[in-house]
Amino acid sequence: MPYVNIKITREGATAEQKAALIKGVTDLLVEVLHKNPATTVVVIDEVEMEDWGIGGLPVERYRQMIARPSAKS
Amino acid sequence: MPYVNIKITREGATAEQKAALIKGVTDLLVEVLHKNPATTVVVIDEVEMEDWGIGGLPVERYRQMIARPSAKS
Amino acid sequence: MPYVNIKITREGATAEQKAALIKGVTDLLVEVLHKNPATTVVVIDEVEMEDWGIGGLPVERYRQMIARPSAKS
Amino acid sequence: MPYVNIKITREGATAEQKAALIKGVTDLLVEVLHKNPATTVVVIDEVEMEDWGIGGLPVERYRQMIARPSAKS
Amino acid sequence: MPYVNIKITREGATAEQKAALIKGVTDLLVEVLHKNPATTVVVIDEVEMEDWGIGGLPVERYRQMIARPSAKS
Amino acid sequence: MPYVNIKITREGATAEQKAALIKGVTDLLVEVLHKNPATTVVVIDEVEMEDWGIGGLPVERYRQMIARPSAKS
Repeated sequence: MPYVNIKITREGATAEQKAALIKGVTDLLVEVLHKNPATTVVVIDEVEMEDWGIGGLPVERYRQMIARPSAKS
Repeated sequence: MPYVNIKITREGATAEQKAALIKGVTDLLVEVLHKNPATTVVVIDEVEMEDWGIGGLPVERYRQMIARPSAKS
Repeated sequence: MPYVNIKITREGATAEQKAALIKGVTDLLVEVLHKNPATTVVVIDEVEMEDWGIGGLPVERYRQMIARPSAKS
Repeated sequence: MPYVNIKITREGATAEQKAALIKGVTDLLVEVLHKNPATTVVVIDEVEMEDWGIGGLPVERYRQMIARPSAKS
Repeated sequence: MPYVNIKITREGATAEQKAALIKGVTDLLVEVLHKNPATTVVVIDEVEMEDWGIGGLPVERYRQMIARPSAKS
Repeated sequence: MPYVNIKITREGATAEQKAALIKGVTDLLVEVLHKNPATTVVVIDEVEMEDWGIGGLPVERYRQMIARPSAKS
């Protein structure tokens, strides 16, 4: 009876992609730990881009910085 | 000073129902563990139906499957 | 099919008190929102005192400060 | 590689304020624990006012009650 | 750069099984949503049996009840 | 009245370092969003190394891999 929470940035994941995540992670728990799928709960949170930070920056600024590593030269 | 997070599917819970959850769970912590209500925090998350999985399926498909257990026969 | 997470400081809650929290919060969700108890999951986290902060202080120091509000006079 | 989740009531925090939270908490983890900022993830959740409870009440009613402590006299 | 939290009851999952969960869920996010594995974080929480509730009961009592559905007849 | 959860790998953070995290993140919320520290809750979770994954690997194996990027050549 596991509980899984998946947090992703909100960038257009479709209902079918979410269904694939739910199925995939449930199958994984059945396969690896023999968990009962009937009581395996999966909750997906889509997080706005401005609410997700990495490297000390909102994710969009971080991606821009990563894409231009030599911008300062 | 407990912290409680309640996750439910988004299916029209009213502000009054949410207030009843906040009051009920706070009272429960006072009663069972003598916690101070003034520092008891409750956060309710309403989760979109397509973001909630159980039994390896998004919750709506799961409910349809449960409602028709002999559909294949 | 709600999911509830209750975080409390680790201060000797017994298995029976935890069972009372599990029963109480499940009953509350049945009563207020007519949720199905069979798929209502409750997870309790006991958090070490040094890992819980309030008012900018670890909780033990905070309680000492609250208990002596006029200490500086 | 820490993970930090900050939950606040939805009351108009700007993208710049969120960026300041992301930077501030990442810097704090670098300074105090020498964590690598490149793998430090920060997720901010803005919670609707009716979904946040304290003192057994939704937060707006709680603030009204606190603002009029002698209302009953 | 997803964040995944997997909560399971503490029942002897091995380090190798946990590594299989970490690899499996990371691969799933790459496959379904083309996420970057280098910034995909997975955190597993093992929860004590007395801290996990389902059906209004601690999980061990719930399993006993399920195993003897006709005990009262 | 924010709630902040900080998850770090269990690698010997001291009580004083945790107190510095609690103070630092509370001060940050006061400074950036004018939040009330008296109702700001911080919870720190120390996660076992085998329970933390990144890049599809438990964190220790990941660090070994990162430290030897040309090991295969």
